[in-house]
Amino acid sequence: MKIEHIGIAVRSLEVSIPLYSRLLGVPCYKTEEVGSEGVITAFFAAGEGKVELLEDNGASGVISRYIDKKGEGIHHIAFAVTDIWAEMARLKAEGFELLQDEPKRGADNKLVCFVHPKSANGVLVELCQDAGELMGS
Amino acid sequence: MKIEHIGIAVRSLEVSIPLYSRLLGVPCYKTEEVGSEGVITAFFAAGEGKVELLEDNGASGVISRYIDKKGEGIHHIAFAVTDIWAEMARLKAEGFELLQDEPKRGADNKLVCFVHPKSANGVLVELCQDAGELMGS
Repeated sequence: MKIEHIGIAVRSLEVSIPLYSRLLGVPCYKTEEVGSEGVITAFFAAGEGKVELLEDNGASGVISRYIDKKGEGIHHIAFAVTDIWAEMARLKAEGFELLQDEPKRGADNKLVCFVHPKSANGVLVELCQDAGELMGS
Repeated sequence: MKIEHIGIAVRSLEVSIPLYSRLLGVPCYKTEEVGSEGVITAFFAAGEGKVELLEDNGASGVISRYIDKKGEGIHHIAFAVTDIWAEMARLKAEGFELLQDEPKRGADNKLVCFVHPKSANGVLVELCQDAGELMGS
């Protein structure tokens, strides 16, 4: 597994996109709303990985509730895998609790699955696989 | 900047090293005490980056206090830079607050400097540069 991205919960992309652009020294290359997750995302390149800012889309409250509880900060780590079904089966067999039975569509054309933080010392771990790979593109 | 590692605060390496080995599917390749930081670290390879577990070394209390406040979980993100002095100067000029005026020795033969979390939406950001590079090795 390699580190695919780090997700950071923020209250306002309007404030945090320019902040992270100055911090990382690169522009935000894309924003994308992920309705299924209730978030708007903003991406910055960082070597072979990326930094993803997450703002609530105003409907779900999922990021707002996280920030109310924990404050703004790192929300999850995502690892790239080449076969998400095999990796999910491996983790289940190892006793990890997954938040989905099947991979679902995430941001940036990925299939994703989350591991419950209680399985991993409080860390929300995301597995992701490029969905394009599945179609040979 | 590329993602060099993700630091995760844990109460017990004895518990968490086997847990993360199962989660990531790779063994811990090194443990190292960093007296200057008051931590014992354990490393796992993850693509071009790595995952670093951090336990209190029993003298400083720095990680224990963090866990008491926030719970076990992601403690910091580290970005690799090729010239840490230049990067520190750039960030200062951009208005970021650094926790050191000079780079200091970190784990894994690195020179490191931290950016204050209040400068970066609650995220503790570490800059690091391979100290070996400085001696032409």
